[in-house]
Amino acid sequence: MADATPIRPIPAEQVTEWAYEADVVVAGFGVAGASAAVGAAQAGADVLVLERTGGWGGAAAMAGGFIYMGGGTPLQKACGFEDTVDNMKAFMKAALGPGTDEAKIDAYCDGSVDHYHWLVDECGVPFKMSFWGEPGWEPPGDDGLQYSGGENAAPFNATIPPAPRGHVPQMSDKQSGGEKGGGYMLMKPLTDKAAELGVRAEYDMRVQALIVDTDGRVVGIQAKQYGKDVAVRARKGVVLATGSFAYNDTMLESYAPKLVGRPAASIEEHDGRAIRMAQALGADLAHMDAAEVAFFCDPQLFIRGILVNGRGQRYINEDTYPGRVGQATLYENENQSYLIIDEAAYEEGLTRPTATEQLRHQPKWVGETVEELEAEMGLPAGALQSTVDVYNRHAENGEDPLFGKKPEWVKPIGSPVAAIDLRGMTGGFTLGGLRTNVDSEVLHVSGEPIPGLFAAGRCTSGVCAGGYASGTSLGDGSFFGRRAGISAAKA
Amino acid sequence: MADATPIRPIPAEQVTEWAYEADVVVAGFGVAGASAAVGAAQAGADVLVLERTGGWGGAAAMAGGFIYMGGGTPLQKACGFEDTVDNMKAFMKAALGPGTDEAKIDAYCDGSVDHYHWLVDECGVPFKMSFWGEPGWEPPGDDGLQYSGGENAAPFNATIPPAPRGHVPQMSDKQSGGEKGGGYMLMKPLTDKAAELGVRAEYDMRVQALIVDTDGRVVGIQAKQYGKDVAVRARKGVVLATGSFAYNDTMLESYAPKLVGRPAASIEEHDGRAIRMAQALGADLAHMDAAEVAFFCDPQLFIRGILVNGRGQRYINEDTYPGRVGQATLYENENQSYLIIDEAAYEEGLTRPTATEQLRHQPKWVGETVEELEAEMGLPAGALQSTVDVYNRHAENGEDPLFGKKPEWVKPIGSPVAAIDLRGMTGGFTLGGLRTNVDSEVLHVSGEPIPGLFAAGRCTSGVCAGGYASGTSLGDGSFFGRRAGISAAKA
Repeated sequence: MADATPIRPIPAEQVTEWAYEADVVVAGFGVAGASAAVGAAQAGADVLVLERTGGWGGAAAMAGGFIYMGGGTPLQKACGFEDTVDNMKAFMKAALGPGTDEAKIDAYCDGSVDHYHWLVDECGVPFKMSFWGEPGWEPPGDDGLQYSGGENAAPFNATIPPAPRGHVPQMSDKQSGGEKGGGYMLMKPLTDKAAELGVRAEYDMRVQALIVDTDGRVVGIQAKQYGKDVAVRARKGVVLATGSFAYNDTMLESYAPKLVGRPAASIEEHDGRAIRMAQALGADLAHMDAAEVAFFCDPQLFIRGILVNGRGQRYINEDTYPGRVGQATLYENENQSYLIIDEAAYEEGLTRPTATEQLRHQPKWVGETVEELEAEMGLPAGALQSTVDVYNRHAENGEDPLFGKKPEWVKPIGSPVAAIDLRGMTGGFTLGGLRTNVDSEVLHVSGEPIPGLFAAGRCTSGVCAGGYASGTSLGDGSFFGRRAGISAAKA
Repeated sequence: MADATPIRPIPAEQVTEWAYEADVVVAGFGVAGASAAVGAAQAGADVLVLERTGGWGGAAAMAGGFIYMGGGTPLQKACGFEDTVDNMKAFMKAALGPGTDEAKIDAYCDGSVDHYHWLVDECGVPFKMSFWGEPGWEPPGDDGLQYSGGENAAPFNATIPPAPRGHVPQMSDKQSGGEKGGGYMLMKPLTDKAAELGVRAEYDMRVQALIVDTDGRVVGIQAKQYGKDVAVRARKGVVLATGSFAYNDTMLESYAPKLVGRPAASIEEHDGRAIRMAQALGADLAHMDAAEVAFFCDPQLFIRGILVNGRGQRYINEDTYPGRVGQATLYENENQSYLIIDEAAYEEGLTRPTATEQLRHQPKWVGETVEELEAEMGLPAGALQSTVDVYNRHAENGEDPLFGKKPEWVKPIGSPVAAIDLRGMTGGFTLGGLRTNVDSEVLHVSGEPIPGLFAAGRCTSGVCAGGYASGTSLGDGSFFGRRAGISAAKA
């Protein structure tokens, strides 16, 4: 990955002209960058955001909009759910690991209700006080709350009292057939708030390298604007918030090879450049192999059948968070999956509301019996049949002893029966990146913070080490983005 | 991970006294370090090795001793096996990925026969010209050649003509009941050769940081010797060869969390320090999540039964390389495994020779029928029964359509039948590390080599990206170690 433009830190004494200057300079105007800008401005700093594209938004503005919050938010309470900070911590540590940063999750959960108030009361992010309880990647309407991590499913519901924590900003445009999701109604208020606070923004700014003084302190950032090199001085600190490396194939090959060729829920600006720039200063990394993995099938369908791998074996409880299905499919089952579903269940699924109509795939194979179906699918004789037999045997009693699917979703598979081909139906974005502390300082491999350098969002390793829940990216991006801005303003 | 001793690069102008000096300074006297020392000395350099312990050897001297070589080595030919460089490349790229460094594998395979001659003819590594063809982690006697990566098993044998490539140095001591494996007879000749070439070694040398000149070139290394700080000058280059990070829990938590608490085939000196030292200079990393995973059961037993996961499902062809079983168990099956085996097969297995007698576990549960057995094991009714039914149904015809186990190992499971508890029976060492090129130069995140810095062995990402074959660590450690020495001598 030799670069045309050097990625190595540039000594400040070599800078002949500072094109721009601010107390806090933020690279990237997605959720982490906007939150950093607001946080820094609220802390009294003069803030400049450098954005590569022609406008604010990043991947966040195009996202469904989940923000993972809990511990008893007003929205949770309004919808009748009890949640505690401890339960939220326990769930996140269990579901987002192994290897989670416990201090980060503790800070995130301890501050979650406050974060809700900051988003709503200070920034104006709107939530409709209603709950969506059906299976789905996101609410089909404008409901504000949904389970988004498998909290109410096995294996977590057996030991940790569940609560829904996926908070979705209300986006009336979506209801009326518009294309924007809740992420827009997170980003619009945040960037409006930034503007109101006097945050400046420069666009078409491609960050290239960090500028450091003789003590190794980060004092600015070198960028290309309209093809020209410009140096930007940061009197107090630089915040990196440029997103994941899902679109950098070289980095994917080295760090997360199973994601090569399947970036999703991401934007092509996510090229990992800021990670590289900080690595060049000795910044540490974490969990570079971790990824969010979407599973491209409508949960209203697959919860009503069974998912089997390329050998006809079940591999997960179908009522869990669909992102867990995606990870299990890609990482543990060679990216092979089939949905086995009988006609009645399929038809029923089609009658239910969904936000992902395009993921309602047609059956590829059908049979009067499972034996017939497995032969059509080319599976070895008995492979699928035995799976369905064991499932049905226990489903007669409403039980799923193998995976713990909840009784309400356990029903024997009848006839006629079909298989939907879901092989290769995954994609996602990277969760690994710069190692930061709870104040969003970027950590050197020595363990010490790099002076003047802060980061948040998907160019960092956040609350997710291996697992994922919808809302943790906009969640830790906004939470630790705000902290990055505050820390930089105080630096 | 704040360190008592700084890990940041030390400016050369701050060094007041050089305690030692050489053309090429090698950190670590395991297989990569010894090979680098010999390579550099043969290229005419004055070489000094810094070793942390009191003697040469590293993890290599305690290893079984496999060196992965092929493409038609004299040992392969003497045992009647045909192999080609192309088949070796194809296998390694298929089995050691995803995300393998293709240029590295190409260089490794193209140079493999030459590497054999260097080890044997120049360094005096002895191989007995005989093949061990039975299942096992390593030959029970002193045979020189064995399949060590699953080349002759599914899925690879269907498309890539197999050849055994695990070359084990002859260790007569082992035959007579001694404790040393073939790795000792790799390290003894290599270090003897190094001594013969005038290579010097200093012991109790704990490397701490790299020393760099004003241009960023590595010109030395700072170490602690008997508790005192000493600076070592490298006139031409520094070679890092200090092994994996399997014993650094902080790094494991951040990069390979599933290996926390289960280091194996590794030594506690493997603390990742050299990786950190180079990261502090902006060195790039690769595949930090990858690991060799041993499966602690004798293959003579498990090849004669079926391995099932915590849900009673088969998950791998039992005749493949046991390290593949280990990875599949730990990464894809929640570290849960049971061996289901009938009495006759178990007894037969016990009569066969093995090098790992201590891995011949006793059955934990027994039954006259599988139904009885699964109840005793606490598995859901039908879960194991259906697995055995499907297996036996095809085994009657000598077939294993689900996993492709070879006919010679496929036999219906009879009665009485037992289960051996293999849950949690895995352990291993890390395969990720510094990103290097085919000349063993350490690459900066810019993609350019860091001047004066070379590395090899398990502190680098070598030929393995995700998969593993026995012999690839001593293999790429010696191959790219030698290259590191030669490159440094020429620098």
